[in-house]
Amino acid sequence: MAKKLWAGRFKKGIHPLLLEYSESISFDKELAFVDIRGSIAHAKMLKKIKIITAKDFNSIKKGLMTIATKIKNGKFKYKIENEDIHMGIEAELTSMIGEPAKKLHTARSRNDQVATDFRLWTREAIDTLVAGIENFQKALVKVANKNKEIVIAGYTHLQRAQPVLLAQHLLAYVEMLERDKGRLIDCRKRFNKLPLGACALAGTTINIDREFVCKELGFDGLCENSMDAVSDRDYCVELASSLSLIMAHTSRFSEDIILWASTEWNLITLADEWSTGSSIMPQKRNPDLLELVRGKTGRVYGALTALLTILKGLPMTYNRDLQEDKVQVFDAVKTVSTTITALTAFTPTLKFNLQSAKAMLKGGFLEATVMAEYLVEKGLPFRDAHEVSGALVRIAEDRGCELKDISLVEMKNICTYFSADIFKRLAPELAVKHYKSTSSAGSKEVKKALSRWSKRLSIAIK
Amino acid sequence: MAKKLWAGRFKKGIHPLLLEYSESISFDKELAFVDIRGSIAHAKMLKKIKIITAKDFNSIKKGLMTIATKIKNGKFKYKIENEDIHMGIEAELTSMIGEPAKKLHTARSRNDQVATDFRLWTREAIDTLVAGIENFQKALVKVANKNKEIVIAGYTHLQRAQPVLLAQHLLAYVEMLERDKGRLIDCRKRFNKLPLGACALAGTTINIDREFVCKELGFDGLCENSMDAVSDRDYCVELASSLSLIMAHTSRFSEDIILWASTEWNLITLADEWSTGSSIMPQKRNPDLLELVRGKTGRVYGALTALLTILKGLPMTYNRDLQEDKVQVFDAVKTVSTTITALTAFTPTLKFNLQSAKAMLKGGFLEATVMAEYLVEKGLPFRDAHEVSGALVRIAEDRGCELKDISLVEMKNICTYFSADIFKRLAPELAVKHYKSTSSAGSKEVKKALSRWSKRLSIAIK
Amino acid sequence: MAKKLWAGRFKKGIHPLLLEYSESISFDKELAFVDIRGSIAHAKMLKKIKIITAKDFNSIKKGLMTIATKIKNGKFKYKIENEDIHMGIEAELTSMIGEPAKKLHTARSRNDQVATDFRLWTREAIDTLVAGIENFQKALVKVANKNKEIVIAGYTHLQRAQPVLLAQHLLAYVEMLERDKGRLIDCRKRFNKLPLGACALAGTTINIDREFVCKELGFDGLCENSMDAVSDRDYCVELASSLSLIMAHTSRFSEDIILWASTEWNLITLADEWSTGSSIMPQKRNPDLLELVRGKTGRVYGALTALLTILKGLPMTYNRDLQEDKVQVFDAVKTVSTTITALTAFTPTLKFNLQSAKAMLKGGFLEATVMAEYLVEKGLPFRDAHEVSGALVRIAEDRGCELKDISLVEMKNICTYFSADIFKRLAPELAVKHYKSTSSAGSKEVKKALSRWSKRLSIAIK
Amino acid sequence: MAKKLWAGRFKKGIHPLLLEYSESISFDKELAFVDIRGSIAHAKMLKKIKIITAKDFNSIKKGLMTIATKIKNGKFKYKIENEDIHMGIEAELTSMIGEPAKKLHTARSRNDQVATDFRLWTREAIDTLVAGIENFQKALVKVANKNKEIVIAGYTHLQRAQPVLLAQHLLAYVEMLERDKGRLIDCRKRFNKLPLGACALAGTTINIDREFVCKELGFDGLCENSMDAVSDRDYCVELASSLSLIMAHTSRFSEDIILWASTEWNLITLADEWSTGSSIMPQKRNPDLLELVRGKTGRVYGALTALLTILKGLPMTYNRDLQEDKVQVFDAVKTVSTTITALTAFTPTLKFNLQSAKAMLKGGFLEATVMAEYLVEKGLPFRDAHEVSGALVRIAEDRGCELKDISLVEMKNICTYFSADIFKRLAPELAVKHYKSTSSAGSKEVKKALSRWSKRLSIAIK
Repeated sequence: MAKKLWAGRFKKGIHPLLLEYSESISFDKELAFVDIRGSIAHAKMLKKIKIITAKDFNSIKKGLMTIATKIKNGKFKYKIENEDIHMGIEAELTSMIGEPAKKLHTARSRNDQVATDFRLWTREAIDTLVAGIENFQKALVKVANKNKEIVIAGYTHLQRAQPVLLAQHLLAYVEMLERDKGRLIDCRKRFNKLPLGACALAGTTINIDREFVCKELGFDGLCENSMDAVSDRDYCVELASSLSLIMAHTSRFSEDIILWASTEWNLITLADEWSTGSSIMPQKRNPDLLELVRGKTGRVYGALTALLTILKGLPMTYNRDLQEDKVQVFDAVKTVSTTITALTAFTPTLKFNLQSAKAMLKGGFLEATVMAEYLVEKGLPFRDAHEVSGALVRIAEDRGCELKDISLVEMKNICTYFSADIFKRLAPELAVKHYKSTSSAGSKEVKKALSRWSKRLSIAIK
Repeated sequence: MAKKLWAGRFKKGIHPLLLEYSESISFDKELAFVDIRGSIAHAKMLKKIKIITAKDFNSIKKGLMTIATKIKNGKFKYKIENEDIHMGIEAELTSMIGEPAKKLHTARSRNDQVATDFRLWTREAIDTLVAGIENFQKALVKVANKNKEIVIAGYTHLQRAQPVLLAQHLLAYVEMLERDKGRLIDCRKRFNKLPLGACALAGTTINIDREFVCKELGFDGLCENSMDAVSDRDYCVELASSLSLIMAHTSRFSEDIILWASTEWNLITLADEWSTGSSIMPQKRNPDLLELVRGKTGRVYGALTALLTILKGLPMTYNRDLQEDKVQVFDAVKTVSTTITALTAFTPTLKFNLQSAKAMLKGGFLEATVMAEYLVEKGLPFRDAHEVSGALVRIAEDRGCELKDISLVEMKNICTYFSADIFKRLAPELAVKHYKSTSSAGSKEVKKALSRWSKRLSIAIK
Repeated sequence: MAKKLWAGRFKKGIHPLLLEYSESISFDKELAFVDIRGSIAHAKMLKKIKIITAKDFNSIKKGLMTIATKIKNGKFKYKIENEDIHMGIEAELTSMIGEPAKKLHTARSRNDQVATDFRLWTREAIDTLVAGIENFQKALVKVANKNKEIVIAGYTHLQRAQPVLLAQHLLAYVEMLERDKGRLIDCRKRFNKLPLGACALAGTTINIDREFVCKELGFDGLCENSMDAVSDRDYCVELASSLSLIMAHTSRFSEDIILWASTEWNLITLADEWSTGSSIMPQKRNPDLLELVRGKTGRVYGALTALLTILKGLPMTYNRDLQEDKVQVFDAVKTVSTTITALTAFTPTLKFNLQSAKAMLKGGFLEATVMAEYLVEKGLPFRDAHEVSGALVRIAEDRGCELKDISLVEMKNICTYFSADIFKRLAPELAVKHYKSTSSAGSKEVKKALSRWSKRLSIAIK
Repeated sequence: MAKKLWAGRFKKGIHPLLLEYSESISFDKELAFVDIRGSIAHAKMLKKIKIITAKDFNSIKKGLMTIATKIKNGKFKYKIENEDIHMGIEAELTSMIGEPAKKLHTARSRNDQVATDFRLWTREAIDTLVAGIENFQKALVKVANKNKEIVIAGYTHLQRAQPVLLAQHLLAYVEMLERDKGRLIDCRKRFNKLPLGACALAGTTINIDREFVCKELGFDGLCENSMDAVSDRDYCVELASSLSLIMAHTSRFSEDIILWASTEWNLITLADEWSTGSSIMPQKRNPDLLELVRGKTGRVYGALTALLTILKGLPMTYNRDLQEDKVQVFDAVKTVSTTITALTAFTPTLKFNLQSAKAMLKGGFLEATVMAEYLVEKGLPFRDAHEVSGALVRIAEDRGCELKDISLVEMKNICTYFSADIFKRLAPELAVKHYKSTSSAGSKEVKKALSRWSKRLSIAIK
């Protein structure tokens, strides 16, 4: 067994149960490449300030590159007795190049090393996520554009409310995703600061050059307090919170699709390759993808709860509790990332059933608000117009007819503001042509929105 | 690729991203042995009701036993295209024994099969956890008994409050763990009902014998509603909640040990094998085990949040969201189980520093409450006694002396109820001899408690 | 301002911001009546052990009863400078009866007093909740019974799966609620132990009689460790967890009702008095009750998260953090209690639309599983039968016809096991007559279940 | 009872239990002033587009201002039958000014009205919070500066690690708070968009001027999708998450203070006005403020959990579940706001005990890392230096002496790199003078940091 790097002082070796309980190599191997990248930058700085020679540096760099290749090729052995990936790589380097490897940890503690690696990893994860979300947005905009003529019922309280363009509904998700991207980018800006050089918590008496390492690793600046640097995990929580909102959004999208795919809505038929069957009921066409997205929302919320719990009431500075941060962040990032990828591939297969869309517009009195607005135009105060319209809905409901089936005479009995032109408005299909307010769900504004998004996302639509 | 068992109806194969996103075999292989056990019981019942022959049954049973052995020996290949462990085992069985294997899924759906397997697994997990907790209790009682003479300061608000026996402090954790066991056992009773036979959600037209399977698998009764049977995951939440409380308790225990191991308290020195060092500070003796326990508390809380989120707002009956239940339950059970095991091994190594214990009793005016109770005995109403005692503490604090250093004359100036016998009580070490109330922290009651626990846990103490 | 009861020692008064931040009287006034009940029992015991005279006791009791009356009549003034309800009542008592009141707090600390009050309150809350849940169950059983002839589609994955009796669907909720009751009752048993007498944390040198108080207050036994007694809040978490599951269940019920009330399902029409309208769309009939139930689920989950967070990593014994327990428990209990009450009143107004129920059975190939089981009866292994049935569904789907519209010849082309009797089974309405397995969703078993529940809940159904 | 504004269509009035369950006026009265502000802006726009006359507008504005005054003076009656504050104000306005009031709700739904009000409220809340946090930062910087000469032990794992300046420890919290401010400001930017004009979900056929209202109310732009506008609650979650991190930080600060105030640390004595006493133990000086801060962390985490749960799986667009958002956001904002205010008032009262600070530096081998760095300077690779240093700590520990008490001969026996100058470094008090790295915990860098913060926060320090 490799000797523990801090074993000098203890008479007895570590208890095997503690070794097993405290190891992190089973999950922090995810950090291998950023750890190597960080170590090379650190070594380069040590060379610059003459703690190590150019020869030492070359030897270290070459050794680390070899290890990186081994890892890529699946030839690197992760050993639990090395506790974590950082010690694992250092131990391997020592066995490969000897003496120079022992100098690598000068003016560095695992506390600031882990913090640096984790920020590098998280930065890359965010860049990948942002690109993924943008692809999902593109898929949504394309489907919206392809189906831009379709009018459906818009819902509040899962009750049909007013006619809207399907595209408006789909673009609502594009808006949510845009905010999601914004949160990730803000988070990245806030944490892209270098902790390395904080060492264990106090900095060092060695005259290191943190600014040099900062540039080498592409950070925007330094963590400005050594004690904060090693104990700050704000970015994990901020990320997990942003990821939770992404899942909240995709869970809402999933709910919509699940409803649309039900026999009751029948607005879409799931493509074969995105449907799953039943082990007992041969007729089933289940939207498992969407149900899993909805379920995995809990998984990401759970990661956020875990991270916040870990931080609560911790004294300064680094405490080993923080090791659990990575388990949660890695899992949450992976969950969101695979969710976005799957939904991006799924979205272009959405095919809408025009007959169902048309049926959605019948029988729900969706033109009732338009009727009220008609009365407002005629001069009736809105509250009165709303009440008149409500009374007519009640009549139509009792008779099982549509609003337009009520005679003008009857209408006038209820409210004298009606005249024959009301019948020109009582068709939900036409309403979307008449929405006038900015950002509304009708033809004019949705066209603008599609064009705006096509520009923002640099995609051609027609 | 093995053909999907529900593939008959679809023209296109499943999308690879959906396959990857929806597979559960990477984690539900944990269910392999209970799945085999459940399938054998189901097959035995199918034989009993003559859906399969005795020959079929023998073939199925032998095949499943062979698969179990393969799994034990690490020779079974888990294939992602089989989606889950249930399909994986069935596919293997089919390739081994052919025709009879295709009859095994008669009058069974994955919905009730998974539910049955998961309850079997959870039942075993609870039995193991309860035994583990009992071992932890035993270790605590033994350490309490070994140190039963030690008096320490008891704290409220992390301020020294009154003298207590160390044993009382340790036994407080035994009480918590007893409730933890009780919750697990109650949970087990509630869910130890057989869902098998509910099939997809409606039951079956085949005349199966659920009572027979119930007995075979050691369930206490049947799930009495087929639709509830396949969608009930209450036990996952109830278990995760009980596990969360166990972690709350062990996190409190850990906090106490971390404080005691600090230089400031110095009440214990961590055994070498349970200490970890620093990669940069050679003098460190870090209580990482306890910090990790505290940190992993977040992990288990997170699992509970995840499970509750999954259930919120799901329509009846089975929805694929529920697949995520296992990820959380498996991880939470493993976390708690390794935590208990590690703490049980750690506890006997606790060695208390007598000098520090004595020092805790000085300078904190711990005898102030005894002084107030003395005045009550002399006839002063408690509120007045409390105020007198408080005034004397203020005097002693200003002077930097102990209560006993204030002269009787001065005391009498403040309250005439004092007489010389007060000085016999002003020693925290003696107070523990005088606690009289049932379950109090003094010698008499703690002795009773130790004896009670030694009986309950069947351990010999002296 | 009333002098703080612990003010004797401090030179400066409390900072007004601390007073405001730490007061609990704005919410713990909820404990007023149990506090009075607890104080009377404590005083009675003090009389028994002769710490106070019979005259003192009578004076205390009379005083407390007068305060109780004042509170009932809204005439009691809660003062923030008294911090909490316990001090508030004691201060009032002191101003009313003088000297004897100052003796009431003998051998009692706020730590054990609050713990006792809170257990008394929680016990009553649970009793009320259990009764409320039982009323909700009764309402569900009655509606199930009233509509026991109605066949609907049962769903998995929100896809129509197999025909079931509506009653089975409703009774599934009765099962869930039964487990909910069980959890509350188990929780009550576990915590119905008396903490009083633990005093601050150590017990007391005064020879109190805890067993006497225990009986007076109807506890099942004593808290057996004084340090655990004052810091145990397990019951808050256990209760919040049980309440969370109740909300999970009611959120699922709500989701079902919301779907059923949609135009797409149209299985029910919401009663006028349980519908809400829109401020702008006159035709709306919104299921706000159910949406709010679903939303308030988050509120109760949040309380659970809060409570678990509070406990994490607290050192022994009482810490002021615990004061926040009541905010959460009171709110969660109130939320669940009003939810159950509202749903109980709402449930009898459920009216089912028979035509929609019938329509649910068409076009979904719900008889596909029956077809597969038919082939099993004929001797085909289930997996093959499932595949055959799936192939026929695909054919019917392509043609837009029902399974029964496929000719026998065609069926036989696919599988020779078919003969003319298959057509007798291809009607979903009939399937429910043929479910045979215990607890299945068909006529025979549902009848049994209704009868079982009518006995368990002591209600007459016909 | 005021007639419900949507009552026209229903035959039966609302059930009293639904009224009680669904009312929000008991908490959303918090929105009264922003609602009035929003309504005036809306009315001004209606005047501009000639839906109402200038006279109508004046009448509306005057009426609303009168209501605002009534509310300020506590003379406004909130009625549960008005459901929410928006209807409450409109009903009052109608009873005051009649006809014109009925026109106010033209081209507006409660959906977009509530969304607008809530954003206005949240914007103000954030501005107040940011200012409050800045005050807390100022208090911390001042205390850090006042005590800038004090050296204490810095901790990792709650074990003394290396000497640091107390000021560095306090400034670490200033860094955390700076990130907290950043998150709030980013959140504000993201949501400061006007939803008004989205109406129920689709916009309106009336030609409203959203840009005009946007400017009137100080929004940075428009919500660009009407369906997203009424269902977006991202800002609630983002805010609750930022608030949760603030509480995580203040809970860590509290933990530090609680430890420092313990007899064991004795680094500070709590000021009288910030201490609380015990109802039974007269000597207690409890840090209740800090314990409550730690406990209330759970409360804010709970709000975040609640909000995320509410959003999970909601179909588009507005659902009544969203009403619960305000309960959580109001409570979380209030909790954080009072926490920051109290801590800001508390911080200047911090007085540090110099003797305890000095004692922290003894006996913990805090100079061990400096010793290792000395050997690195002499040319020994760090890993070897670390091991040598560790071996010497073990020797000193066994002997109960300090490192400097080991003779040079003995040191050289272990490592030949030692020479006599080592003894000049073996004093923790001096180490802080020698930390060289940027942002380290020593004199030079901390001085820079204090100066930087005094500039950033515009406070004079000396």
